[in-house]
Amino acid sequence: MTNRPPEHPLDWSSRPATSAAWVARAREVAARLAVDAVERDREGATPYAEVQLLKDAGLVPLLAPAEHGGGGQDWTTAYRVIRAVAAGDGSIGQLLGYHYLWAWAARLVATPGQIEAVEKQAAEQEWFFGGAVNPRDDDLVIREEDGELVFNGRKTFSTGGKVSDVTVLEGILEGTDRHVFAIVPTDQDGIVFAGDWDNLGQRLTESGSALIEGVRVPWEAAAGYVATEQGHEFAPRTYNTLNVPLIQLVFTNFYLGIAQGALDTAAAYTRERTRAWPYAADRKARAVDEFYIQETYGGLQSKLWAAEALADRAAGLIESINAHADAVTPEERGEAAVVIASAKQTTIDAGLEIGTRIFEVTGARASANAVGLDLFWRNIRTHSLHDPVAHKRAEVGRYALTGELPEPTWYT
Amino acid sequence: MTNRPPEHPLDWSSRPATSAAWVARAREVAARLAVDAVERDREGATPYAEVQLLKDAGLVPLLAPAEHGGGGQDWTTAYRVIRAVAAGDGSIGQLLGYHYLWAWAARLVATPGQIEAVEKQAAEQEWFFGGAVNPRDDDLVIREEDGELVFNGRKTFSTGGKVSDVTVLEGILEGTDRHVFAIVPTDQDGIVFAGDWDNLGQRLTESGSALIEGVRVPWEAAAGYVATEQGHEFAPRTYNTLNVPLIQLVFTNFYLGIAQGALDTAAAYTRERTRAWPYAADRKARAVDEFYIQETYGGLQSKLWAAEALADRAAGLIESINAHADAVTPEERGEAAVVIASAKQTTIDAGLEIGTRIFEVTGARASANAVGLDLFWRNIRTHSLHDPVAHKRAEVGRYALTGELPEPTWYT
Amino acid sequence: MTNRPPEHPLDWSSRPATSAAWVARAREVAARLAVDAVERDREGATPYAEVQLLKDAGLVPLLAPAEHGGGGQDWTTAYRVIRAVAAGDGSIGQLLGYHYLWAWAARLVATPGQIEAVEKQAAEQEWFFGGAVNPRDDDLVIREEDGELVFNGRKTFSTGGKVSDVTVLEGILEGTDRHVFAIVPTDQDGIVFAGDWDNLGQRLTESGSALIEGVRVPWEAAAGYVATEQGHEFAPRTYNTLNVPLIQLVFTNFYLGIAQGALDTAAAYTRERTRAWPYAADRKARAVDEFYIQETYGGLQSKLWAAEALADRAAGLIESINAHADAVTPEERGEAAVVIASAKQTTIDAGLEIGTRIFEVTGARASANAVGLDLFWRNIRTHSLHDPVAHKRAEVGRYALTGELPEPTWYT
Amino acid sequence: MTNRPPEHPLDWSSRPATSAAWVARAREVAARLAVDAVERDREGATPYAEVQLLKDAGLVPLLAPAEHGGGGQDWTTAYRVIRAVAAGDGSIGQLLGYHYLWAWAARLVATPGQIEAVEKQAAEQEWFFGGAVNPRDDDLVIREEDGELVFNGRKTFSTGGKVSDVTVLEGILEGTDRHVFAIVPTDQDGIVFAGDWDNLGQRLTESGSALIEGVRVPWEAAAGYVATEQGHEFAPRTYNTLNVPLIQLVFTNFYLGIAQGALDTAAAYTRERTRAWPYAADRKARAVDEFYIQETYGGLQSKLWAAEALADRAAGLIESINAHADAVTPEERGEAAVVIASAKQTTIDAGLEIGTRIFEVTGARASANAVGLDLFWRNIRTHSLHDPVAHKRAEVGRYALTGELPEPTWYT
Repeated sequence: MTNRPPEHPLDWSSRPATSAAWVARAREVAARLAVDAVERDREGATPYAEVQLLKDAGLVPLLAPAEHGGGGQDWTTAYRVIRAVAAGDGSIGQLLGYHYLWAWAARLVATPGQIEAVEKQAAEQEWFFGGAVNPRDDDLVIREEDGELVFNGRKTFSTGGKVSDVTVLEGILEGTDRHVFAIVPTDQDGIVFAGDWDNLGQRLTESGSALIEGVRVPWEAAAGYVATEQGHEFAPRTYNTLNVPLIQLVFTNFYLGIAQGALDTAAAYTRERTRAWPYAADRKARAVDEFYIQETYGGLQSKLWAAEALADRAAGLIESINAHADAVTPEERGEAAVVIASAKQTTIDAGLEIGTRIFEVTGARASANAVGLDLFWRNIRTHSLHDPVAHKRAEVGRYALTGELPEPTWYT
Repeated sequence: MTNRPPEHPLDWSSRPATSAAWVARAREVAARLAVDAVERDREGATPYAEVQLLKDAGLVPLLAPAEHGGGGQDWTTAYRVIRAVAAGDGSIGQLLGYHYLWAWAARLVATPGQIEAVEKQAAEQEWFFGGAVNPRDDDLVIREEDGELVFNGRKTFSTGGKVSDVTVLEGILEGTDRHVFAIVPTDQDGIVFAGDWDNLGQRLTESGSALIEGVRVPWEAAAGYVATEQGHEFAPRTYNTLNVPLIQLVFTNFYLGIAQGALDTAAAYTRERTRAWPYAADRKARAVDEFYIQETYGGLQSKLWAAEALADRAAGLIESINAHADAVTPEERGEAAVVIASAKQTTIDAGLEIGTRIFEVTGARASANAVGLDLFWRNIRTHSLHDPVAHKRAEVGRYALTGELPEPTWYT
Repeated sequence: MTNRPPEHPLDWSSRPATSAAWVARAREVAARLAVDAVERDREGATPYAEVQLLKDAGLVPLLAPAEHGGGGQDWTTAYRVIRAVAAGDGSIGQLLGYHYLWAWAARLVATPGQIEAVEKQAAEQEWFFGGAVNPRDDDLVIREEDGELVFNGRKTFSTGGKVSDVTVLEGILEGTDRHVFAIVPTDQDGIVFAGDWDNLGQRLTESGSALIEGVRVPWEAAAGYVATEQGHEFAPRTYNTLNVPLIQLVFTNFYLGIAQGALDTAAAYTRERTRAWPYAADRKARAVDEFYIQETYGGLQSKLWAAEALADRAAGLIESINAHADAVTPEERGEAAVVIASAKQTTIDAGLEIGTRIFEVTGARASANAVGLDLFWRNIRTHSLHDPVAHKRAEVGRYALTGELPEPTWYT
Repeated sequence: MTNRPPEHPLDWSSRPATSAAWVARAREVAARLAVDAVERDREGATPYAEVQLLKDAGLVPLLAPAEHGGGGQDWTTAYRVIRAVAAGDGSIGQLLGYHYLWAWAARLVATPGQIEAVEKQAAEQEWFFGGAVNPRDDDLVIREEDGELVFNGRKTFSTGGKVSDVTVLEGILEGTDRHVFAIVPTDQDGIVFAGDWDNLGQRLTESGSALIEGVRVPWEAAAGYVATEQGHEFAPRTYNTLNVPLIQLVFTNFYLGIAQGALDTAAAYTRERTRAWPYAADRKARAVDEFYIQETYGGLQSKLWAAEALADRAAGLIESINAHADAVTPEERGEAAVVIASAKQTTIDAGLEIGTRIFEVTGARASANAVGLDLFWRNIRTHSLHDPVAHKRAEVGRYALTGELPEPTWYT
């Protein structure tokens, strides 16, 4: 789609009325994206047009409150929309998922007044959010100058980069261990994206490093900080710690989408182009009649459906928590985190197997780069390394064995 | 529990008010059953006391309409209750699940008047249903004598047998290919259970063969048959064909229960009795601190949760269909059947792996027969052979590949 | 075979001339054992007749030097013979394997004079060896009385028990950390086998606990100890540490045999009794023509052949070491131990999968206890818990990653 | 290495004296190839320099008779050499393996005189063989003109292409079903390689299509054809049918090499660059100390060793057959084919799992394209689609179940 003006054969002028209609809209977007996903992956251009497509389809302000003109949908719908978009293009699904998370960041850490202000502005201006936030980096330092906060340093990874309107910056107040999140305009001299993301998959996610030099925000923009007599203070709540479960379930959902995209793409190939094995004892006329092809698709689809159902169950736990965000208990948070860890690992296992085995049911010619069936394996393989799945399994195991809940921190 | 009068430390005098409360009640039953499940499996006595326990707990008329004094619950709740009971004893979970299906058989095939009559009587008399129905046997022949139907023959398998109050008999009208279902009192001279079920698992399900000699029912009791000028006629509906999906999801749910029972039983053993490996480079004080033990439990629990979530999704499809049973379309029926086939295979895979690998996280001494950890593998392994899982995978695969729905028949 | 006098339709009067002939002889024994292995497992009687059968077939002195009248074979042949016998009856394969190891114990730890004496006597009297040796028990204490060693205590596990002629006893010299191995007649008042082995599988291995009271041996019988001016001293050699690799490869080989026995037994059932699935879209006349049945057998057989080939490769390493036992280096020992650990885990994985999945290709009726197909899973599952396979995997992993060799000790 | 003159720090002036020395030589070649395998894969240039490296190392005439100046080695050594080279670069391993097969083609189908002539010339001129042979294509037609055979048509796939000195052409005599193989100089006007191989992996194998126009050979060059009164006749032998087992075991061995290359490359990365997980409960200083990393490597290495051992066993069967090539029985041929099918599938399973899971033990940064760890998965995934592995499993299954041997044909 890169380099070509987006066309709109579909009527996206009105806003979807139901959760199902939002998902249907996302599927329309995915169908557009799927047409040249392989080519786009190869070109590796910055996906301006694709983000515009998300805006045109109305998906960007999905979670924003209806009173500000947003979609007013819940995370259950958001997760399904991410999944649907990722089935067409994993990178764009990831960009959208991270956008939802960063757009929600205010809810997680900001004060009521900040939330109101940010969500109003975001909806009105249709902000697409990126983020330069990474718990394993300590390299964005914040100095206070003239009553303002000045960010300097370099983030090894960011997401969204150039295609975002605003960026969530995270840094540490110099000489302390206090972290500050702030939303800043992406397009400013102090933010330079290196464009150095050259990895196996999820190639269009603008995930490279970012150089931050002298980015200034007023204290009022420091999410969740309140001016007190002792200075600016941050009051932690359990709900703050939902960031990790929320984003891990974002991951899970775009993996699910990528995996379903893999199966659907492969199935189309098998139906249209795969030949039955001519040397079989019991030779079939069509590839779709071969028992092993049927059984393989069935086994793979079943694993994926099971992972998907578990992700949906996890979304339900998130929804319950969101219904009383101010009163969420550590147990609720911990149990949601465990189920999400479980959904994530199940999805990764299914997705990698699907990404590998689709070739066995499409055949030797499907390994041509022109077909591009490897895109799915590359996409899931790359992002699923975010944190070690073995440790996620152990986390679930500790809960199953002893009821131990994962320790919530700002970063894990 | 066999040979010992059931005790009731729990207050089961009032009926649970919510679906969750019904499941909680089922868990109480399971806790009672789990105490001596291993011993009971070894003795192999007819589970009269266990069925009485189900009655005492109020679980038997769960699906019966509230207006007749039944629980008035839906299948979603029934499936969860089956699952919960099976976690304590897989055989009793199976008996309860088949009971629900046979109690529902009237809804599937009978006329409105028959349904009303059967459900009223069943609720009032707290019938426990068994069945002598087997699609692969043609050996119960029905002759018409004096305007009555007389069943004769032998069923290779039945379920419930001696512990049931009534039995659903299925046979074929002599010289035709017309099948008749009828509910008859179990305790009559014409029905003799051979007690010849001696298989690896699910040993207390009274699943042996049944000799049927001269069992008589009036034409009015032939479910779904209506007297017409041309004789007694049966009018097939799509809803009739829900029998297979309903029972396959019953299977899935008691497998899920057995597998969760396996994990819970093993986890208790690991916590209480397993020793950390003394020769490890990085020796741990407690077995629960060993990484491989945590990771193994986590991996197994995740697979089971995923299967469970898919089974719940399948129950949702059943519920939608039940909401308009008379107008169910072949597509709805087929899609539910496919998702159930998918849930079943996912569950079997998870269950067999759990049944095998729990030993690796409990240790060598857990292979003692006094511990009885093999019960879970035996139970799942035995019943999951009911129909070949490879064909179920192929069924799902055909749907994923071409959208083909499984052919509904009276029997498959 | 229990309770019935062994018959000898085969001519076992002369000794096999080649390694292949020894294995063929073992297969004849296995064929005899397989006939009633299921029934024997159920009865659980002490396998006197079966050990006699091993003697009648000439397999017992297989490793004994030809000059003493032994078979003069190497371990490569011994491992194949164990494997072959275990295919007929896993318990008897284990008994024979342990016998070979205990008969070899002199080579591992004794002085040249002791070796000569033991092997001569063993061959002449056709000793069947058992052992009461367990590295995780410290509960056999040796006191010196009147210049003799007196063993007292209780071993939680032994192998061979009543069916052995001699027993290798292992204990610790009171107040020291010095272990002593000695060969004693099994049939004496001081040794009482509790007969308390009641585990899931390998039920005929006489593996229960042993009470040792006042068993006396002269210092000369303390394997490897030499009288010096400072008292009796033991001089460790690297070859001593081969005990663990040797026995772990014994384990591996009887697992291989059990697994092949499982496949062969199942294949016979599939050929003779399994029905093709009548509801298949592409219905076959015979079960052996179903694609999934062919594919399943092929996948399982392939895994087993691969494990077998790796076990054979490991036997080759043992053979190389035995060719210069006095000069074996820690590296050789370590590399053999790693390859054996690798063969063992591969075999266990294959064996458990085979033990579980054979039911899927034999069908529901094959779960009848009269068929007894669960015997294979039970046998492998039980013994493969001897030490945690996860730690074996980590051992191989450390070698693959960093070249680290497992630490050899007397016991691990 | 492309674009750079090969350097020779190693002394390759003399010929290796033993099989082990040949393999060691191959490892030296592999070490050279591994240095820039990732970069070379990306550039995709024709591997002239790499084939020259094989020649410089003396590996090309490995199988040629010593009397002609060849290496005089057997296939066991050839397979190990292929495996060793493929560990450094899968494409070059494939090129070498196909070369050995095509160089052996004379032995398979030619007359004694032809064999003598070809092998002499091949050794003297150090021919590197390519092939344009594909059983599923019928599109090379041979016309007889002026007593010569003239090949015309287009092969969809060839191997070796431009880097070969000679090409084995296969075509069908016009109007018959008689196939002819002939060795022709690659560098001639009538052969044009399209250079259209643009697939996921094995990118340097020159596997694209070939246009053949008017390539002429005398009847004397038609392998195995003898002039008779009835014309030129071909006398089939069972040994002819060894082509498929031989090449399938070539495949297996370069897959084994690629997989071992993957493990070795990953292990170096883990040792040198992977960080231990900082949020682990039981945090380790080094990644190599993490239990899951050790266990994962151990599990993967074990699977690969098992596959390798089975491939070695298969090579032994080939060797036995080669020892009496003229008298090989269909049973020997069939059993070798089955074991090779088994080794191949086991290797593919292990290789794909290794290619996927090495990322889990190297970490997120190892997904950078600069690292190039995906090369192994791409290489195995691409070539292992040559023929459906499910059918190979079924082939092994039929043998295990009923003793049925695969039908030998010229092409399968």
